[in-house]
Formats: sequence, C-alpha cells, structure tokens
Amino acid sequence: MGVIGYGYWGPNLVRNLYEIPSSDLIAVADLKEERIKRAQLKYPQITLTKNYQDLFAMDLDAVVISTPPKTHYPIAKECLQNNLHVLVEKPMTLNGQHAEELVELASKNNLRLMVGHTFEYNSAVHALKKYIDSGELGDIYYVHAARLNLGLFQQDSNVLWDLAPHDISILLYLLDQVPTSVSTHGMSCVFDDNYDVAYMHLTFSNSINAVIHVSWLDPSKVRKVTVVGSKKMAVYDDMDNEGKIKLFDKGVDGAPPYNTNGFGEFHVNYRSGDIIIPKINYVEPLRAECEHFMDCVENQVEPESCGHSGLRVIKVLEAANQSMINGAKKEVIQW
Amino acid sequence: MGVIGYGYWGPNLVRNLYEIPSSDLIAVADLKEERIKRAQLKYPQITLTKNYQDLFAMDLDAVVISTPPKTHYPIAKECLQNNLHVLVEKPMTLNGQHAEELVELASKNNLRLMVGHTFEYNSAVHALKKYIDSGELGDIYYVHAARLNLGLFQQDSNVLWDLAPHDISILLYLLDQVPTSVSTHGMSCVFDDNYDVAYMHLTFSNSINAVIHVSWLDPSKVRKVTVVGSKKMAVYDDMDNEGKIKLFDKGVDGAPPYNTNGFGEFHVNYRSGDIIIPKINYVEPLRAECEHFMDCVENQVEPESCGHSGLRVIKVLEAANQSMINGAKKEVIQW
Amino acid sequence: MGVIGYGYWGPNLVRNLYEIPSSDLIAVADLKEERIKRAQLKYPQITLTKNYQDLFAMDLDAVVISTPPKTHYPIAKECLQNNLHVLVEKPMTLNGQHAEELVELASKNNLRLMVGHTFEYNSAVHALKKYIDSGELGDIYYVHAARLNLGLFQQDSNVLWDLAPHDISILLYLLDQVPTSVSTHGMSCVFDDNYDVAYMHLTFSNSINAVIHVSWLDPSKVRKVTVVGSKKMAVYDDMDNEGKIKLFDKGVDGAPPYNTNGFGEFHVNYRSGDIIIPKINYVEPLRAECEHFMDCVENQVEPESCGHSGLRVIKVLEAANQSMINGAKKEVIQW
Amino acid sequence: MGVIGYGYWGPNLVRNLYEIPSSDLIAVADLKEERIKRAQLKYPQITLTKNYQDLFAMDLDAVVISTPPKTHYPIAKECLQNNLHVLVEKPMTLNGQHAEELVELASKNNLRLMVGHTFEYNSAVHALKKYIDSGELGDIYYVHAARLNLGLFQQDSNVLWDLAPHDISILLYLLDQVPTSVSTHGMSCVFDDNYDVAYMHLTFSNSINAVIHVSWLDPSKVRKVTVVGSKKMAVYDDMDNEGKIKLFDKGVDGAPPYNTNGFGEFHVNYRSGDIIIPKINYVEPLRAECEHFMDCVENQVEPESCGHSGLRVIKVLEAANQSMINGAKKEVIQW
Repeated sequence: MGVIGYGYWGPNLVRNLYEIPSSDLIAVADLKEERIKRAQLKYPQITLTKNYQDLFAMDLDAVVISTPPKTHYPIAKECLQNNLHVLVEKPMTLNGQHAEELVELASKNNLRLMVGHTFEYNSAVHALKKYIDSGELGDIYYVHAARLNLGLFQQDSNVLWDLAPHDISILLYLLDQVPTSVSTHGMSCVFDDNYDVAYMHLTFSNSINAVIHVSWLDPSKVRKVTVVGSKKMAVYDDMDNEGKIKLFDKGVDGAPPYNTNGFGEFHVNYRSGDIIIPKINYVEPLRAECEHFMDCVENQVEPESCGHSGLRVIKVLEAANQSMINGAKKEVIQW
Repeated sequence: MGVIGYGYWGPNLVRNLYEIPSSDLIAVADLKEERIKRAQLKYPQITLTKNYQDLFAMDLDAVVISTPPKTHYPIAKECLQNNLHVLVEKPMTLNGQHAEELVELASKNNLRLMVGHTFEYNSAVHALKKYIDSGELGDIYYVHAARLNLGLFQQDSNVLWDLAPHDISILLYLLDQVPTSVSTHGMSCVFDDNYDVAYMHLTFSNSINAVIHVSWLDPSKVRKVTVVGSKKMAVYDDMDNEGKIKLFDKGVDGAPPYNTNGFGEFHVNYRSGDIIIPKINYVEPLRAECEHFMDCVENQVEPESCGHSGLRVIKVLEAANQSMINGAKKEVIQW
Repeated sequence: MGVIGYGYWGPNLVRNLYEIPSSDLIAVADLKEERIKRAQLKYPQITLTKNYQDLFAMDLDAVVISTPPKTHYPIAKECLQNNLHVLVEKPMTLNGQHAEELVELASKNNLRLMVGHTFEYNSAVHALKKYIDSGELGDIYYVHAARLNLGLFQQDSNVLWDLAPHDISILLYLLDQVPTSVSTHGMSCVFDDNYDVAYMHLTFSNSINAVIHVSWLDPSKVRKVTVVGSKKMAVYDDMDNEGKIKLFDKGVDGAPPYNTNGFGEFHVNYRSGDIIIPKINYVEPLRAECEHFMDCVENQVEPESCGHSGLRVIKVLEAANQSMINGAKKEVIQW
Repeated sequence: MGVIGYGYWGPNLVRNLYEIPSSDLIAVADLKEERIKRAQLKYPQITLTKNYQDLFAMDLDAVVISTPPKTHYPIAKECLQNNLHVLVEKPMTLNGQHAEELVELASKNNLRLMVGHTFEYNSAVHALKKYIDSGELGDIYYVHAARLNLGLFQQDSNVLWDLAPHDISILLYLLDQVPTSVSTHGMSCVFDDNYDVAYMHLTFSNSINAVIHVSWLDPSKVRKVTVVGSKKMAVYDDMDNEGKIKLFDKGVDGAPPYNTNGFGEFHVNYRSGDIIIPKINYVEPLRAECEHFMDCVENQVEPESCGHSGLRVIKVLEAANQSMINGAKKEVIQW
C-alpha cells in the first residue's frame, strides 16, 4: 500500500493505514520537502519520495491519492494504468468525462476504484439511513443539509467543489437515488469570481426535494442534515456533544379534501411526541473507510463508494456548478 | 381606540392596548361568539360586538385590525373611509394594488396607516441595525434569515405569506433598501398546492444577497438572522436564552491579485477574535409597536412601519410568490 | 375567594384565579396604594382594599395569601380563625412551631390548609416522579438540585429561605420521604450576615443522598434537578427549550466481590444507551395549583401540598438554616 | 528522555515528547507485554522494556512517570536517586509525607521535580487567571468547580483522588494561595466503601470560598469552573464548542447600611451587561507542559507546577479525604 499526497488530509490517511494491523503501508509520496520531512519523523520505516511515479516500481497492490483535486484524474489514471487499486479523495475528478474514463479504466483492468466519501462510513449517517430504510420516517418529504464554517478559501476551487461532495454523497447514499435536476444560487463575497456561499436546490423523481447549503463564510461551524418525513423527522448534527442523531416523533396529518372550520384553518393534526437521541457506537469513519478499501482489494469486491458512486457525485457537482455560473438556471441532469 | 379581530393575535394586541395607560381601548369586534365571550370575561368594561361596522359609530380615533389576511384590504379600506387611523396586521394586503390603494386613501384622508411589522420594534433587531449602520460589520455581504417550526398550516395561505413578511420587513429595515429581484424555491410536502417550505433568494443593487428560509415543517423552532459583513458578523437568535444577539469578530481578508503559494491555497488571512453578547434591554415589541402607533396618531407623525413600508413588503411577497409558482423563475421587482 | 398580597407573586395568582371559570374571585387586599391601583386597572369589578381584615366580612370561602414570608403565620392564623380555607405561599412560616400551630388550627376548624409548592403541580416534575415510582431509574442513589441566578436579594431573608423551599418540596415529593439530617454550607458574599449562596447536604434513611445548591449570585440562570439511579438517570432542566426532561439509559454495573484485572481497574460495566426527551404536556403549574385548591375546598379533600407538607419543608429549612449558622454542623431532624 | 508507564495517559505523553523537535525520547518502560507491543508498532526506533530500572543505565537526563498513582512515590524516588529529573503524573503521591520526601530529595540532588498538573498549562485557565489578577473580576467571592462524568471507576482509588487533583491545582493556581480548611461530603453509590461522588468545601484566609464537585456517576460530561467576583463573573466551560471562557459583566452593588424600602427588599443595584467570549489561542496543554519540563531541565529553572506545588495539592487531597471519611468533619490544613 502507498499514499500519494501528504498535505492537509494525507496525514490522516497515513495514520489510519499505519495503525490498521492488516495494512502494509510502505511508501508515501509528496512534492514538498517539508512534508516529506514531517512524515519521515513520524514514520521512519516508511519509504518517502517526492516523485509518486517511484511507487510504480515498488510492487504495491494499491494506492491512496490525497493530492489537490485537479491532479486526481491524471494521477489516478496513471495508477490504474500501472495496475494499482485506487482509493482517491473526493472530488474524484473535476468533470464527468474524466470520472467516466477512470471508471472504465478500472473496470477494463479489473481494479478496485474507490472514492473517499468518508461520510458513507460514518456511523451517524448509517443510523440516519436505517431510519429512512426501515420506514420509520415514513415517506421522505425533503432533506436540508448545511455545512458552514469560516474558511478554508481556495484559489482554484470554490465552496461547491470543496464542501458539497460530502453532502451530495450523503444525500445519494441516504436516498438511494440520483437527482433529476439542480439549481444553485452562489455568492462571491470576498473575492470576485470565487464562490464562497452556495445553496443547491435538488429535485428527485419521486417528488423528494433537497437543499444543500455550503459556506466558507459563516460565523458558526455547522454540520447538519435534517430529514423530514411524513411520519417522523431526524437530524444529524455533527457538532452536538450530547448525541449526533435526534429522532423527532413529529409530523402533520391531514387528509384531503381538507375539513375546514370555515375560518382559514385546516383541521390538521400536529403530532409532537418524544425525541430520541440514540446511542451511536462511534468508529472513526476514515478508519472504517480504509479498512473497507483493504477488504475490497483483498476480496475483489466492489467498494460501497465505488467509482460509479464518485461519478454520480461529479455529475451532480458539474450540473450544480453550471447552474451557479448561469445565475441559478435549472439544470437537468442526464443519467 | 378599537380592535377588530380577536383570534390568534388579537388578544395580544388587546392586552397591550389595555395596559398602556395613555390608550383608551373601548371596543373589540369579532365574528365568533366564543371569542366575544372570552374577551368579555377578561375585559368586562369594553364594548364587544360581532359587527365591526358598529365601531364606526363610536367616535373612535383609530382601530387595530387583526383579522385573517384576506380581509385586511376591505376592512382597512372601510376604516380609512370612515376616517379612522389604522394599524393593520401583516401582511397588509394580498397584493400590491390593494396595498397601494390603502396608502393613497390614507394619504388623501390625512390618516395614519401603519402595518404590524413587530420586529421593527424589537430591541434585538435595533441592536443588529446599529451594528450595520455604524459600519462595525463593514460592507454587508449577505443576510440569511430562517424562521422554522412545526405548523401552523393554513388553507388559504402558504408558508411564504404567513412567515416571510416578518423576515422581509426585518431585511428592508436592516438594509434600508429594496431588493431588485427574487427567486423562490417552494415545496408542497403535506398538502398538494399548499407550499409549506420555501427559500427566497433576494438580490439588492449593491451586490448584497439575502436568503429567507421559512418552514411550517421543521423539527426545531428556529428564529435566526445572520448578517455577514466584510469586517464582522452578527447573529440574532431569538431562541437563545443567554442573549439574542452575538457579534463575531470574524472575517476573511485577502487583497487581489491574490498572493498564492502555488499549491492551490490563497494567502488569505482569517480573523477570528472575541465574540460579544451585548446586553439588550428587552421591551415587549408589541407594546413598543402599540405605543408608537398611539404617538403617531396623537402627534400626526408618519409611523416607522408606515403604509409605504407595508406596500414594499407586499411587492416583495407578490414577486416571491410568483417566482415560486413559476418554479423559482427569477422575478425582477419594479419599484 | 379572596387574595391577600398583590406584590411580586400575587398578580400571577390573581390572574389564574380570575381566568379559572369555576373560581369566583371577589376581593384583593394589599397594603400599598400603587398596587391597589394596578389591580384596579386590570380587574375593575373586583373589590380592593388596603386592609386584609376587610375580607373577613365578605362571606368568602377561601383566601390565598401571597404576602412577605414573615407575615404568613399571623395572617394565615387569622384567616383560619375566621373560618377561611387557606392557600399560603411558600415558605408557609418562618419556623416549625408556627407551622405546626397552623396545621393544628386548620385541623381543629376542619379547614383546608394548602401551601404554594408550585413545583408539585408541574408536569415535568410529575414525569420525573413517574420515572422514579415505576422503578425505571432503579434504586435512587442521589438527587442534585440547583437553582441559581443573579438576585433577588432580600434583607430579611436569605437565599436558603428564598429559593430552597422549591427544591425541598420537589425532593420530598419525588422521594416520598423526609431527610434524617442536613448539613448546610453558606456564603455571605455581597452583604455581611446575609447568606447569598448555599449548599445543603441531606441524608435519607435508605442511604439516599441529596444536594441542593441555591444561589443569588451566579452568572447563569440554572433550574435543574438530576436524579441518579442504579438503572437510569434523569434530568429536569427547566431552561432547556427542546425538552425539560431527559432520561438517560446510563449506569454502572459491578457485582462485588469485584473482579479486577490486577491493574487497579474494576471489571465494571458501563451502560450508555439512548437518551429520551419525553413529550410533556405543559399546563401552567400555578393554574393547576389553583384548580387543585378550589377542588379541595369544594370537595373537602386534603390538598396534595397540604399543611403537613408545608410543615415538613419548614422543618428541613429550619434545620438547614441552623446548620448553616453553625458552620455546616450536621443537624439531625426530629420527625 | 524516557517514559515509564504506557497505559491510559502514557501514550499521550509519548506522542507529545516524540513530536517536540528538541526532545530526544529514547526509551519507554511498561509492565504489560501488550502495551510494549503497541508502543513498538508506533515508535519502532524507541527502546522498549518491561523493567523501568533498565532506564537508569541509559544515561538519560530525565524521565516522565505515568504509572498508577500508588507507584508514583517509589518510582519517582528511585529515579531521583538515580540522578534523573522527574515529571510525575498527578497525584504526585498518595500522602503528604511521601510528597515532602520527594521534594527534599530533588532539592538535595539539585534535580527538577515537576508534577503533571496539565490545567496549569491550559490557555483557557491562563485567560481566567488573567481576569483575576488584573482585577477585572474585582474581589473574588467564590469559585465553583465541577468535573462530572460517567466512569472511570477504580478499585484502589476514589473519585476524589482521581478527579479532584485537577481542580485543586487549578484553584491554587488561580488564587495564588492555599486553603485553610476543607470539609468533604462523599457518597458511595455503586460500590460500598468506594466514593464515587464528592463535594469539597474549601475556605481561604481572605474569606474566599471554593466548592469542588467531582463525580464518576453523572449523566452529562461537565468540566466547568465558575469564578464570581465583586465586579464581574467568569466561567470556564471546557465542553462549550463556541468558546471555553465567558466573561459576564454581572454583579450586585449595595452599600451598608442598607437602604431599604421598608418592604423587605434592599435597594441593591443589579448590573447585567455584555457577555464576552474571548478568543483563546489554543495549544495542546500537554504539549506546553512537556515543553516547559524540557526547558526547565535544560535551563535549570524551577518548573511552575513544581514539587512544592504537587505537595500542596496532596496536602489538600489528604485533608479532604480525611474529612470525607469522617462524615464531612471540617479539617484544618496545616501549612
């Protein structure tokens, strides 16, 4: 196993791979001298190189790529061509065509291609999905996801490509389906032509709606997904110390044709019962993700957040970005 | 002084008017027998009637109208025609033409016409405006307002007309200007053709953006306005027990042309300093509103939330609603 | 029905009694002119007097006494002597002997004597008691109650007599038993010889402990009762917007003789399961209290927070205060 | 540099010492095979041994001891006898005599003896002390510290010896003085003769009071220190995501002889102004502690949390424990 990229996120991957007993991490590549040195200090027995292509001669099975987004495509491609299983960080590529190419290449070479959609390995997200799949929430009306913070501005990216992959992958995972259209309102507050706040409005075929609100420019750190169903509602709040998931026995019942009392109010019935904060057995999601990748490589199984999953996220992002550039013009997504 | 409408909100108006020493509340009208009885029990010395037109013979100076929205226009019109000063609940009318008519009628008859935009009389909103006007926040980038709850569904209204008047009036008051366009995404989750969740995206001429998120279908009660400026950020959270306003010494500095370190990150500077929760001297906003109305009537002064202000809110609502019906098509607002 | 005392708390009693349909409030007495005037403005049809003894000639059934604590005993006594049922605010008296006297007098004259332990009529406290009585919490280990705030300092009282009656009455109600001893640590921070912070340590016969922490000098408003049992734990937090009661499926199991791993750790088992925030159907406790008093008067039933209950609270207070004066010396309470 | 003990806390010390560039960690000792293996995997280049006495032959300058409390004294003594500077985890020893012995031995051999009072290296605690020392809080009335959680029960310790060293060291550090007496109320809820909840009441010479509440048996994790002064109040809440320190411009003024309005209320003045959440530049306290130890060793300076400081904490603990055993009997502490 090798890792390419030891910048912001790479050290977390290296730490996890290093600590998983069954893993055999033998090499790390990064362009920057200072990062090489930092890795060397922590992991003196691992081979370090500034040239990721050195890894191709090391007889590795697999690599993990955590380089800047724009390099994902060329590096992942080269790795797949060199017969390596690949786990690539999100976003998988910067456009759908590149993503498709990687998926096809992996398939042709019979290699595992996995994308680092960490939240699909998060036990709180699993709990949320269980509420949806079991029917406990009833029919899903809508999902609202917010991922807000101050920073981290990037010059060759925008808030959509930086933060929304998380929420799109959560959404597709939770709903088991893809959106049919998207409309995105973006703002460029601090720098011209660099979107730092965005609201995506997504439509799904069975009348489910979703909104994703991402921001690099908010006073509070927010990581929150609200799922509203016809029977119950659930919230995943990653910043809540007491419990990350809350299940609300709340809802509105009212059968058409409405009975009305003649004074402008429905005879609707509001249910407002107990709130449950379920115990979630927390495992570091990145650890679970890395273990899953190694399992898939070893047992030749398709990963859950496979290349197709990465491609779907890229296609939504691409359409969302196009809509944002066009002033929130609705984009139909072709599947 | 008389009050027409003793339903959901009317009792609050009556209580305040009754308790203000200088006010002289002598009559309340409501169509429903049971409400009349309830009012009678509490205020036995006040005249009660099922016919609001009875008030016209009572030699009143002014009336307060808190009837269902669709009746605001005809009743307010009739009151103005009968030479009464009028405080009408929000929304002032259900369309801009009616609002304009009332404004003109009041002007012609030299009467005060005021709209019950309660939040313009809220000391927390005043504090927020002071931060904006003093320049403490710097240039305003955007405002995000959220007003979420479970209920109260209404048959002949929607969530936009029900909840957004509050936030639109706050927004116009804070920014001292009107939006040039609006695009609204609505959802009809529980009932067909009855919008219960909506997101308004507003644009102002000086590149300020605003988003208003209103919902009748959320698990948590949220009443929150976030104002993000180039220097500082402020939040008004009406549900916070400790303090409703927070001022964040947070921001992002970065002068173009960007200095870059060549690895995809700006050399931007993130400021993250103290948070201040200012002491707000709370006065019940409705009390302040009622006192202001009486002052204006007595001293022949134009109210702050005057008819023109009400008209502006109605024009924004009308455009927002049109946009929502048209699938979030952008509506330019003519001023 | 009459009310004596229209100061800080009296207006709440009058409002509730006035609004309960079956009640027939006909007179209010207070020494202060300005209060009389305020009451007159709100309730013009009620008889008002500066002399509470005027009430004795009005052929009333019952009176509610909400005067300063030191006057409770003489006024209540006089009312009972004048054959009136009495609801007296807490603390019932300033010493146990007076409390006993009132209880005996009420009994002799066959009158209802009730004390305003509002929290015994609070639906959140009822929910808490249900968890205890049903065995859901298991054996009760301890209760910790905190009632903190800034103010309201009183010259002829201290923080113990002012705030602790609430928590003592809650405690006795929840546990259905009386403490055998108490030790109180007090502080006189702002004024010499005026206790403004106190910690009561109470012991019950079956090895249950309780701590009551009251303060006039805390930066945050706290109203919280924690009940820790062998099976589960529950918290009543009156300041929590989302839900006042939380039930924690948390606990520690470990059967003696302890298994130990030889390195200083027990083989104990920590259970940490779901948290439940039950739906509490809120009724204003004071309303429930007033209705209960009227029921008891009408149907000649002993009230729940009867004179004996008030006497028990006074005896605990008296012992706690004695302990505080004696530098936290343990006081055994004689029952 | 060497580390003795790689159990619960040792790995954190090793990680920090390993990452500090100027440190030269060359050996770790632990009795348990499995821990040795775990350390070996993470730090293959470090010498590992089951016998800490092996370290004495390695020509080390200093050792860090993080073994079970009862072994602190013999191991620290042996290290000092072998001419090693010592950083020992809290509590330094299990009684004052042992602590004194270590202090004397270090002094005689001219060695640094430091105790791991981590919170004295915590930037939030520094901020709190600055508020006190600058006079911003005015005269200090009292401090209330709470450290509550579920677990971690230990057989040969109790909640006081386990958790209170943190709060005692914070208290002594903040107030720059030692308490004159202590009274401790303890409960043994889960196991007989194993205190799991305790309240310490401490008195200082200048009429400052302090309360330390520690618990192994609470539904919520609490880490909170409240400091109430005559001018302002401050809270250090380690569980608050938004900011760990809050400064409250709150207080009570009232000059004796009290002016009174004759109705039982003082003419006191309540100040309730802004709340400030200052920006705290967070550094991992353990990192700062380790760096400080290395500085002191290198530059032959007395550490801030030196042996005398450790001794003071032990003397308070010893007296507090004695009081607890004696049913909260007040213990005067001899200095």
